Amino acid sequence: MIGTERLEVETRGHTHVLDINDRVAHAIRTIGLRNGIVCISVVGSTASITTTESEPGLLTHDLKAFFDRVAPDDARYLHEETWHDDNGHSHVRASALGPSVSLPLIDGRLALGTWQQIVLIDFDTRPRTREIIVQVVGE
Amino acid sequence: MIGTERLEVETRGHTHVLDINDRVAHAIRTIGLRNGIVCISVVGSTASITTTESEPGLLTHDLKAFFDRVAPDDARYLHEETWHDDNGHSHVRASALGPSVSLPLIDGRLALGTWQQIVLIDFDTRPRTREIIVQVVGE
Amino acid sequence: MIGTERLEVETRGHTHVLDINDRVAHAIRTIGLRNGIVCISVVGSTASITTTESEPGLLTHDLKAFFDRVAPDDARYLHEETWHDDNGHSHVRASALGPSVSLPLIDGRLALGTWQQIVLIDFDTRPRTREIIVQVVGE
Repeated sequence: MIGTERLEVETRGHTHVLDINDRVAHAIRTIGLRNGIVCISVVGSTASITTTESEPGLLTHDLKAFFDRVAPDDARYLHEETWHDDNGHSHVRASALGPSVSLPLIDGRLALGTWQQIVLIDFDTRPRTREIIVQVVGE
Repeated sequence: MIGTERLEVETRGHTHVLDINDRVAHAIRTIGLRNGIVCISVVGSTASITTTESEPGLLTHDLKAFFDRVAPDDARYLHEETWHDDNGHSHVRASALGPSVSLPLIDGRLALGTWQQIVLIDFDTRPRTREIIVQVVGE
Repeated sequence: MIGTERLEVETRGHTHVLDINDRVAHAIRTIGLRNGIVCISVVGSTASITTTESEPGLLTHDLKAFFDRVAPDDARYLHEETWHDDNGHSHVRASALGPSVSLPLIDGRLALGTWQQIVLIDFDTRPRTREIIVQVVGE
């Protein structure tokens, strides 16, 4: 059995990290499957899905500081020179982190720890409306 | 068909990289499904699953040196200031690498190369007992 | 239902980024399933799969510049000292990015954006023939 739910999420961009855990859990309940694999993906090449502990230090500072260190917005990006935009670092960060995360679904719940939540990270350089897809294959 | 196996793994923390390939392969044989997708995940927000060549240089030095470079333990982490702990870098490393890896299952075997093994990396700052979930959807 | 297709891709190595999106889409059409989860993986421990916008700046410069920054080829790698080779950075880059990406399959199409394509990145230090596996679980 397959189930699909789509979520729309408003972001501020600029490596905005948003806890979408409750919305993903609600989508899974709506689908109604209890066991299998869940793939949570974001559409587009300047955003990513991962997990973290949802607390303000990590969400508002620590993850952004990491990406600022490894893929600075003021490094040279040919993407920007070609397209005359400013989001080369957004693309690189999103490719490095990846567009999706897959997790086991067991008895209707994602196999996450108590202090582990699903987050969307929007690396683009402007506010965006993001489409998240929650896809379940299971029973 | 769905199959689930849980593994407990003892780690030393501090970016300890452990080859769990044989235990994952055993779990897949126990589940008994032969073809599909396998999702291998670790519960918690300070550890990750990936693949590498299981040889001492990579496992004991090279991967840790990479994470020490990109997310140093002595950088500033608001997570540590808020919670008075010391594992901000552990969270950032785990979020950057991700909590799971998914791979094709073909004729009872994961689609891995000869020199490619499943590894758990525990980024926390103390020894931990980790729960790994091997979830198979297939036939 | 399960479907498997194998692709062979010739690379130049040295963090060569190849757009394999059309070949993956063709594999999915060959399999014929319309909804589910697709896992796209590369066999071996010195290559990875991710998504990016397929345009020359990102493919030929920006992604490689990122990996050159975070895992330089002239850093110290015990893997190289042990095995007398030169691809320690290739292994570290591949482990950091991961061997596969999973995405929702909806009405026969991967849930990708207009400017988002599946890419293979070969981090090894010589040309390689890579095996990509496209695995679909669905209906």
